[in-house]
Amino acid sequence: MTVGEALGALAPARRSAVVGMAPALAAVPAEDVVAGERLPAHARATVDGYAVRAADTYAASETLPAFLEVTGAVAMGRAPEGEVGPGAAFAIPTGGLLPDGADAVVMVEHTTEPMPGHVELLRGVAPGDGVLQAGEEARPGDVLVPAGRPLRAADLGLLAAAGVTFVTAHARPRVGIVSTGDEVVPPATAAPGPGQVRDACAPALAGLVQEAGGEPVPRGIVPDDPDALERALAAALADDDMVVVSAGSSVGARDLTATVVARLGRIVCHGLALRPGKPTLLADCGGVPLVGLPGNPRSAMAVFRLVGMPLVRTVGGVTAPPPAPSVRARLGRDVPSAAGRLDVVQAAVRDGVARPLFGSSALLGPMTRADGWFCVPEAETGLGAGTEVEVMLYG
Amino acid sequence: MTVGEALGALAPARRSAVVGMAPALAAVPAEDVVAGERLPAHARATVDGYAVRAADTYAASETLPAFLEVTGAVAMGRAPEGEVGPGAAFAIPTGGLLPDGADAVVMVEHTTEPMPGHVELLRGVAPGDGVLQAGEEARPGDVLVPAGRPLRAADLGLLAAAGVTFVTAHARPRVGIVSTGDEVVPPATAAPGPGQVRDACAPALAGLVQEAGGEPVPRGIVPDDPDALERALAAALADDDMVVVSAGSSVGARDLTATVVARLGRIVCHGLALRPGKPTLLADCGGVPLVGLPGNPRSAMAVFRLVGMPLVRTVGGVTAPPPAPSVRARLGRDVPSAAGRLDVVQAAVRDGVARPLFGSSALLGPMTRADGWFCVPEAETGLGAGTEVEVMLYG
Repeated sequence: MTVGEALGALAPARRSAVVGMAPALAAVPAEDVVAGERLPAHARATVDGYAVRAADTYAASETLPAFLEVTGAVAMGRAPEGEVGPGAAFAIPTGGLLPDGADAVVMVEHTTEPMPGHVELLRGVAPGDGVLQAGEEARPGDVLVPAGRPLRAADLGLLAAAGVTFVTAHARPRVGIVSTGDEVVPPATAAPGPGQVRDACAPALAGLVQEAGGEPVPRGIVPDDPDALERALAAALADDDMVVVSAGSSVGARDLTATVVARLGRIVCHGLALRPGKPTLLADCGGVPLVGLPGNPRSAMAVFRLVGMPLVRTVGGVTAPPPAPSVRARLGRDVPSAAGRLDVVQAAVRDGVARPLFGSSALLGPMTRADGWFCVPEAETGLGAGTEVEVMLYG
Repeated sequence: MTVGEALGALAPARRSAVVGMAPALAAVPAEDVVAGERLPAHARATVDGYAVRAADTYAASETLPAFLEVTGAVAMGRAPEGEVGPGAAFAIPTGGLLPDGADAVVMVEHTTEPMPGHVELLRGVAPGDGVLQAGEEARPGDVLVPAGRPLRAADLGLLAAAGVTFVTAHARPRVGIVSTGDEVVPPATAAPGPGQVRDACAPALAGLVQEAGGEPVPRGIVPDDPDALERALAAALADDDMVVVSAGSSVGARDLTATVVARLGRIVCHGLALRPGKPTLLADCGGVPLVGLPGNPRSAMAVFRLVGMPLVRTVGGVTAPPPAPSVRARLGRDVPSAAGRLDVVQAAVRDGVARPLFGSSALLGPMTRADGWFCVPEAETGLGAGTEVEVMLYG
């Protein structure tokens, strides 16, 4: 299966829980957030100057200024006292509430003060100039923030301005992470025995889950034993919104995982046209997606970026995912590939040139030294030096 | 001052505290993280197959296979028993420890089993084929992760593989956020009085601080009173690694802020060649950077993205900032500008076309509806429709 086919075939039925919360960065609203009131509630000045009746200023110019009496001043944070009559003006600061009678604000830069208590306007203004109208930002019923888009900083500002201190949003999806393998020991193991390796997959996958807005739930290391694996996966499936299992590096370990997963759900894909990452397993376990990954950490991460992170977002209610950082660069050398398979290649990018970083997929180094990765599409048998590629950058 | 000049002029002397912590996504190592041991500790198979002496396989081909006796098998997670002698092979799974005597692994796909206990090799291998050598990932003293680069998912994997469960890293920089203005009331205010506005700046800036890896420290709303503001800023400067004050929207409020800040430190910049964002104040208060922002939230955010977020990263020890997502797009219409000033323009991007979103800078809506923003450089008097611009995308 291609990556696109696999993502199309696995349509998880369940989403993470919907909860009430204070608006927070990256929270995903479960429904449109709608304005309950006019924003701003009253017309306000957008410049420092004088609130006037625009009709009093039409003919004003530097040679023939309009002459108005200053009959009041607007203080910040308070309702203006009185109203602006014909031939009159109120001093007003930026943000001040527009007083009754006035329909425009003349910038102070376009005025002079010929004598105390009076102002000369050197320019005319039209109604609405220098004014933010009531309801110009939002009217009751307007959508302030759409459902399904993770909240951004500006959204937090708009919600605060509208007095929205509580939203209905998806909880961060819980993603259970199971590592398997008789050889795998915890990262804190000071001196692994011969043939043992510390678990690099779980911490790396936890990082990707977080990047995708999920909450990693570490579920430990399970030996290559079908019953133990079934118990661990069943526990994760019962509690979590999604489950990831790094399925061991050998054929035997992968077959064991597939056998166990087949007992727990419907296998949608067993084997992706992807390198690294061919031995990928996707299953639907009662609406909860399960992703089985190759045992070596770099392959597991390459697959998880392509397949797992979109699933984390979907399960977490995201319908408008944030953009991934990328840069276009020219290939510094030829990259071979096989047709019918998507190749993920690590790359360092300098001055618009992408230098592919090769090396055994058992090595993490090419990934930690890379600035990002690019794909050689399924249809290509390779890409020549100088070809422009889109390098997806690591954040 | 231009934005570049301002950033050059403000070189904060202090960094956030250095602490010991478990490796975590986005944590910033304060020093290079160095390998203490060989990784992997022993040579391992990278394929499923047979561990052999390469010299025994040189002439092997499909027509003339090499015939070896299988004298052992490697189990995952355990030291192999015995050694591979001349003319012999051990079965070995991917990740299995290479037994003594062997120097290569033949993939199982390139073998047949003519009779139990024997294997035929259909291809020759060279020493090192199918093997990850001891120390190939890292040798003692190798830099696993450099100082100053926020940890990425792959770094977490590599550190776990190396048994590094503790790093010396910068604490998330504490960024105090002070709002000022007699008109400003907390977001939770159900019904602001006439002329009052809810504080949209502080939540929006808190979001940007988090995006930049900082810890926002809300320091409340201060009225337009010099002594109250001085007390609030002094308290923030004493506790925090950086301080941001949204300095009110009127000229009077901004002058008040500048007067107070001048008592607390050295003003480096008062007024940026930037729209929106001209009334920006940058100061060095005993090594702690202070940023005074325009009072309207959209201007404040535009400035903070350009000036504040780089400072948050610097103060937090970041020397290799993560890439910002961006996309190149053609302008859908002309954008006017003034020479000598950097214009920040909000834009919606569809199908490679950037549609500028205008509207009073007092409105947040153009920013919440935008996909990102682009700059009209200081030297330009505007950009024509069709010009290619780099739109920095909101994440």
